[in-house]
Amino acid sequence: MQSLLIIGDRINSSRKTLAKAIRERNAFLVQEEARIQEEAGAHYLDVNAGKFVGEEAEHLTWLIEVVQGATQLPLCIDSPDPEVMRRVLPLARRRPIVNSLTLERGRMEGMLPLVVENRTKVVALCQDGREVATTAEAKLRMSEKIVEKLTKAGVPMEDIFIDPLLVPLAIDFRSAVETLRAIEKIRRSFPEVHVTCGLRNVSHGLPRRELVHRTFIVAAIAVGLDSAILDPCEKGLMAAIKAAELVQGRDDFCLSYIEAFRKGQLVE
Amino acid sequence: MQSLLIIGDRINSSRKTLAKAIRERNAFLVQEEARIQEEAGAHYLDVNAGKFVGEEAEHLTWLIEVVQGATQLPLCIDSPDPEVMRRVLPLARRRPIVNSLTLERGRMEGMLPLVVENRTKVVALCQDGREVATTAEAKLRMSEKIVEKLTKAGVPMEDIFIDPLLVPLAIDFRSAVETLRAIEKIRRSFPEVHVTCGLRNVSHGLPRRELVHRTFIVAAIAVGLDSAILDPCEKGLMAAIKAAELVQGRDDFCLSYIEAFRKGQLVE
Repeated sequence: MQSLLIIGDRINSSRKTLAKAIRERNAFLVQEEARIQEEAGAHYLDVNAGKFVGEEAEHLTWLIEVVQGATQLPLCIDSPDPEVMRRVLPLARRRPIVNSLTLERGRMEGMLPLVVENRTKVVALCQDGREVATTAEAKLRMSEKIVEKLTKAGVPMEDIFIDPLLVPLAIDFRSAVETLRAIEKIRRSFPEVHVTCGLRNVSHGLPRRELVHRTFIVAAIAVGLDSAILDPCEKGLMAAIKAAELVQGRDDFCLSYIEAFRKGQLVE
Repeated sequence: MQSLLIIGDRINSSRKTLAKAIRERNAFLVQEEARIQEEAGAHYLDVNAGKFVGEEAEHLTWLIEVVQGATQLPLCIDSPDPEVMRRVLPLARRRPIVNSLTLERGRMEGMLPLVVENRTKVVALCQDGREVATTAEAKLRMSEKIVEKLTKAGVPMEDIFIDPLLVPLAIDFRSAVETLRAIEKIRRSFPEVHVTCGLRNVSHGLPRRELVHRTFIVAAIAVGLDSAILDPCEKGLMAAIKAAELVQGRDDFCLSYIEAFRKGQLVE
């Protein structure tokens, strides 16, 4: 009865091995990345070719087809460019998540119609033309604007995933706590809306990155996070999520925790 | 700038090696337990001889003197018996925590005057003559009664440590989540009161106990826990606490986290 929706983040052109695989059309490596994430417990797979400016659409087209050849998991299609999104969205075999729109003018106006027409789910970032929201209050204010715009356009609450935006602690050591407070506020204001979070960045520049990831996710689940974009192959992180579901009272009679232990998934 | 007050729980007669050491007056072993907990980051040391019914006071007297011979840390004197507490309290060289009183009639009436006369701090359990509070609401109701009784008697808010009582998940799989919600409610109702929690029991009967401990503590810190009674020699647990302080924005420029890494304290 796990309630955290996991979007696997490994198929991303910002990773050097992935950029190389995309450039060389190495379908084997990409499909292996899809399989290991599914095996590790991902519910969606993020696909990103954002590194290839000018050629993003063709690379993303290839990526989507290759990934769908390896897994039945639905995709989280990751591009900031509405024109790229428009071209690749029809390729998705199962109802995808559009990742992402923001309050920036062109991006909102470009992405929102695609979300509505294709009836996709959508990740919306707490960011407008002027700034990335850094305080919990600013993140909440932007969330309110996002929810208003999206629901007015006909997007159901439950298809919206707000990402409060977590910047590296090494850059802003209050980034995580402001995000945690924002998650709490957003969940209180919009109980039907999902809150998600890209996890990889928070630990950038720090040692023991997985320790930061697993600690943040447990704290975030405690205040209402119900989705995350993360690397499901981090075993300590996935064990922490399993244990978080346990301490949140969502694992009846601890059965799922004990089963995970028997399968060797609970690394400490 | 760590804000979690850690009460080391290892010197406890419910542990077989400790019971044996107490019975045999093995001061070396007891003092070693004191030293390793101080070294690991404890702020208080719990001392307990509750296993020795009828002889508790004399064993606890010995324990307190031996422990104070090894460390300057203040003590958390752990007995349910007001008569035992009355005899041993004068031995404490630094201002101790009385652990614990409850709403049970004889225990409240016996312990409270000792706390007031000796101006000690005090752990109060969410338990009355009829029941251990299991729901968050019941834990809050008992906390309200405790705070009322204690403050009326002159105990300052900041000397009170409420323990919402965490029973093993293997017995009640909702125990942790009800405790988490209680922590949130108690902190909101009484911002000056401390909330503490005995951690060892929660994982009883489950595999990977340290994973349960570290996950619970991170979630509990996220909702306002500011003290815990735990084993500071669990390295993964202490690393999780360090990382929790980081994600809670209490570690300016991540300096304390990085220092802990350099000292080899951040096991994953």
